[in-house]
Amino acid sequence: MALTLEQIAAHLNLLAKPPGSLGRWEELAARLCFIQQSLQPEVRPAELVIFAADHGVVAEGVSLWPSLVTTVMAEQIALGGSVSGVLSDLYEIPRRVIDVGTKTAPELKNPMLIDRRVSAGTKNLATESAMTIEEFDKAWRSGVDEAIESRHRGAKTMILGEMGIGNTTSASCLGVLLANIGVAQAIGQGAGATDDSLRKKRDVVEVASHRAKTLWGETPKLAIAEVAGFEIVAMAGFMVQAAEQSQTILLDGVIATAAALVAEAMSPGCVKCMIAAHQSAEPAHRLMLAHLGLTPMLDWSMRLGEGTGALALFPLLEGAAAWCTRTASISSIAHRLL
Amino acid sequence: MALTLEQIAAHLNLLAKPPGSLGRWEELAARLCFIQQSLQPEVRPAELVIFAADHGVVAEGVSLWPSLVTTVMAEQIALGGSVSGVLSDLYEIPRRVIDVGTKTAPELKNPMLIDRRVSAGTKNLATESAMTIEEFDKAWRSGVDEAIESRHRGAKTMILGEMGIGNTTSASCLGVLLANIGVAQAIGQGAGATDDSLRKKRDVVEVASHRAKTLWGETPKLAIAEVAGFEIVAMAGFMVQAAEQSQTILLDGVIATAAALVAEAMSPGCVKCMIAAHQSAEPAHRLMLAHLGLTPMLDWSMRLGEGTGALALFPLLEGAAAWCTRTASISSIAHRLL
Repeated sequence: MALTLEQIAAHLNLLAKPPGSLGRWEELAARLCFIQQSLQPEVRPAELVIFAADHGVVAEGVSLWPSLVTTVMAEQIALGGSVSGVLSDLYEIPRRVIDVGTKTAPELKNPMLIDRRVSAGTKNLATESAMTIEEFDKAWRSGVDEAIESRHRGAKTMILGEMGIGNTTSASCLGVLLANIGVAQAIGQGAGATDDSLRKKRDVVEVASHRAKTLWGETPKLAIAEVAGFEIVAMAGFMVQAAEQSQTILLDGVIATAAALVAEAMSPGCVKCMIAAHQSAEPAHRLMLAHLGLTPMLDWSMRLGEGTGALALFPLLEGAAAWCTRTASISSIAHRLL
Repeated sequence: MALTLEQIAAHLNLLAKPPGSLGRWEELAARLCFIQQSLQPEVRPAELVIFAADHGVVAEGVSLWPSLVTTVMAEQIALGGSVSGVLSDLYEIPRRVIDVGTKTAPELKNPMLIDRRVSAGTKNLATESAMTIEEFDKAWRSGVDEAIESRHRGAKTMILGEMGIGNTTSASCLGVLLANIGVAQAIGQGAGATDDSLRKKRDVVEVASHRAKTLWGETPKLAIAEVAGFEIVAMAGFMVQAAEQSQTILLDGVIATAAALVAEAMSPGCVKCMIAAHQSAEPAHRLMLAHLGLTPMLDWSMRLGEGTGALALFPLLEGAAAWCTRTASISSIAHRLL
């Protein structure tokens, strides 16, 4: 018999605190209990999995950074020099960086940096399909396989992140395609932008998302492949598999949420295992989360990616698991009050 | 030569991430660097110090809970059965519970539960001075002594909390007295309320804060003593001493912030060492924080007290210290991008 949200709320109200006094922390605890179907949820082992890939669309001038940054930062994440690497060390969360298609393959040999390259970046989605169906399937399978491996290692909480110069353009297209967001609202500054790069981004998203929409009737997969990135598709595959395995998925920012839209489109219902860690500075993010029925926990205007927003929430998720499991019950101390 | 906010911002912009991309996490890191006057801030050792005391004003029916709850929960905090106790264990933060005047002295003998009792609770502030000047000084001194001891133990971050049935009434009076908040805005539901208890609370705050205001001309201390609580005065004394010792003070909710108002009134400038961990569900809290020039980091509608809101922010403060110290600089990876 399934544990209901009402039963979870009743449990939280038996703890030695005024009912509801932990506010949204109770909402977080309740969602975790519901995902794990347990009043004693466990968040560890947790893993940080970062998917990295490049985007042909950077040829359009939509990003201020060169594609090589994807490779260099993928290496830094593995080495622990990135913000996400520092945080995963601090919070004692093992990390893996999955190269699903950087333009320049990493030089670094490191056990945390895994080669699952589909190809050297997507095609330019401004003018052609970002990937073929075969490439979509290969990227998806990378994510599924990673999720299966994580389950074999016993992982309960999956913190997913990405690195991919140009990928906010792809995410914007997916927001338009899968969450009915208007093009103007779908565009943000990403990792940095000028008026010129924003205008180019807007023009590209307008054209490419329209093209993708016309393909929806054939198959949704074809429409998604038209504008997606390898790291987004891999993350979506991971999410679908992780949800089947009843793992808890901590969503990061606008790219991870674009992947969640893809996951939900391909396998409706998998959103039930997701927790929206934060609301990013990207304007499309709130609309995407609303489309998925998720309410973000932190609102710190972060826009770094690499899973950093999801990492920020992790110790608070762990806190929720701890207090909802270990706090004394009112009944255990009631005799002292007589 | 002092480290300026501009120098700190320049340092954060040299790290391997888009400038400003960590949003409010950068604001938190910058404030921590500024308090510690270091670009490599350290947050540990950290300590949780909870002051507990009772309030004669509960005789007016302002709270739904009996004073004995203060004693029982003080014991539970020490034992680790309260939410704050669970979190301090999880986040590996040693805790101390300082009894500065519970109505019923704790039965528990425990090294984490310290007896610094001023008396068995304050007088009923609805009808008379909550405490004498001698009692104010004794409570204040308890806080100062605790801060000095914490410094001897090397503590860098002080997480302050409180337990005291009836203390939101006292905090509301202090908000009216010290932050010019209107009586209607100063009243919230505290740990739980009915229409009847809220009406009583409002009437009491109206009368008592007016009485306190008339005493301000004699000395501020006399006015504060008229409506304060022992745990609030002790916490204020702690804050003033901790600020002199350049420790970082994590503010919890409306009671801790009332103590911060007292601290700032008694020793202007000590707010520079404070960080507002969260915005509580109490309506007066935002106004008090604004009066102090502080912007809360979390907004989760918490209203438990016991330092739980400050504990929630601690791992994120630790995260800020970590990423601003250990993230690779752009210059260290720039050669890879050529």
